[in-house]
Amino acid sequence: MRDALVAAAFQLFLERGYEQTTVDDIVALAGVGRRSFFRYFPSKEDVVFPDHERCLADMTAFLGASDKDDEPVRRVCDAARLVLRMYAENPAFSVQRYRLTKKVPGLRAYELSVVWRYERALAEYLRARFAGRRDGILRADVIAAAVVAAHNNALRSWLRSDGEDDAEAAVDHALGYVQAAFGTLPPHRVSTGPQDVVVVVARRDAPLWRVVQEIESELGHN
Amino acid sequence: MRDALVAAAFQLFLERGYEQTTVDDIVALAGVGRRSFFRYFPSKEDVVFPDHERCLADMTAFLGASDKDDEPVRRVCDAARLVLRMYAENPAFSVQRYRLTKKVPGLRAYELSVVWRYERALAEYLRARFAGRRDGILRADVIAAAVVAAHNNALRSWLRSDGEDDAEAAVDHALGYVQAAFGTLPPHRVSTGPQDVVVVVARRDAPLWRVVQEIESELGHN
Repeated sequence: MRDALVAAAFQLFLERGYEQTTVDDIVALAGVGRRSFFRYFPSKEDVVFPDHERCLADMTAFLGASDKDDEPVRRVCDAARLVLRMYAENPAFSVQRYRLTKKVPGLRAYELSVVWRYERALAEYLRARFAGRRDGILRADVIAAAVVAAHNNALRSWLRSDGEDDAEAAVDHALGYVQAAFGTLPPHRVSTGPQDVVVVVARRDAPLWRVVQEIESELGHN
Repeated sequence: MRDALVAAAFQLFLERGYEQTTVDDIVALAGVGRRSFFRYFPSKEDVVFPDHERCLADMTAFLGASDKDDEPVRRVCDAARLVLRMYAENPAFSVQRYRLTKKVPGLRAYELSVVWRYERALAEYLRARFAGRRDGILRADVIAAAVVAAHNNALRSWLRSDGEDDAEAAVDHALGYVQAAFGTLPPHRVSTGPQDVVVVVARRDAPLWRVVQEIESELGHN
């Protein structure tokens, strides 16, 4: 029923245009009542993005299942991959929707609000992980925005290739850039009995704050 | 006239609520006709954000006036400061609007679309500056998003302080974080080959400041 409504809606959006299609048109084509439509979708916009609520719930569950050994930036990158996978599951549908969204300002606004919810989910997780650290909230917000931007960059490239390119490779590359900028490298630790020694290896061009952050966590200062 | 319409609108939004106020109510209080309202504002949402169009135009002009010697990340940070300055020009109004926007989902959506336009303006500038570089578009998009997130983090802190805190100091701090992560380093710090890596060995019980001092001198950050 739900899939039939989505299929009917997209058929009409492509034939007549999004604005010219009413919910009545959609339910008539799908052969169901209006009430059935609104049981699945709060509004006409929602039928365009039928999987985001599920994906947001999956992302929240994924982040909730983290433990403290997960490197936080890697974890949010992996969470972002869930969104890309949702798009890549159904390339033809995703490409169709991409073209539709570009043409209809109302859908673009809807999409911005969805993207914002993903970004908040990532930021909330990072804020909790960085709690008590200096600039924890700032870092969380900036990293979440960077992850979302990198993800969307890869997603748009893939959509513009009509779903032909390798979506996973594109997102790995894009997220790799963010991890290089913000992720912590696993420190190499040498311990020599009671006189415990920490060895930190850093790239010479690494920003100082990142090196300090790594040492802070190694020395147990935070 | 324009200012009178904004003042009348906010008086009514605060008294009756945003949704309960019509354009007719606003023009009646301001003592002008409907046509005057729509000459200044395309919709009721626009009267809530009367200065964004001007600020977007200022930002575009500022970025357009850059020359190739401007460090690109610094330039977009300076462009973002224009937005903060617009808010800080009128603290009472900005704080009022912040409270209103939090309560009205339609305004929140409008605000997201404005933020998106600022982000696109920054990204377009960076894309042009990074043209021909490897991953130029990816870097441009990620850095623009990071700058906007840092700016908004500082702006929100300032709004939550009821406009009492030092807005400029907050945004300098937040943007400094982004510049440290993404800004171009002076050439003498960029090296290739075996000198690329710094190894720091510290006792676990060493005071953090001493470790940082040592790294600073190793990295040449001071």
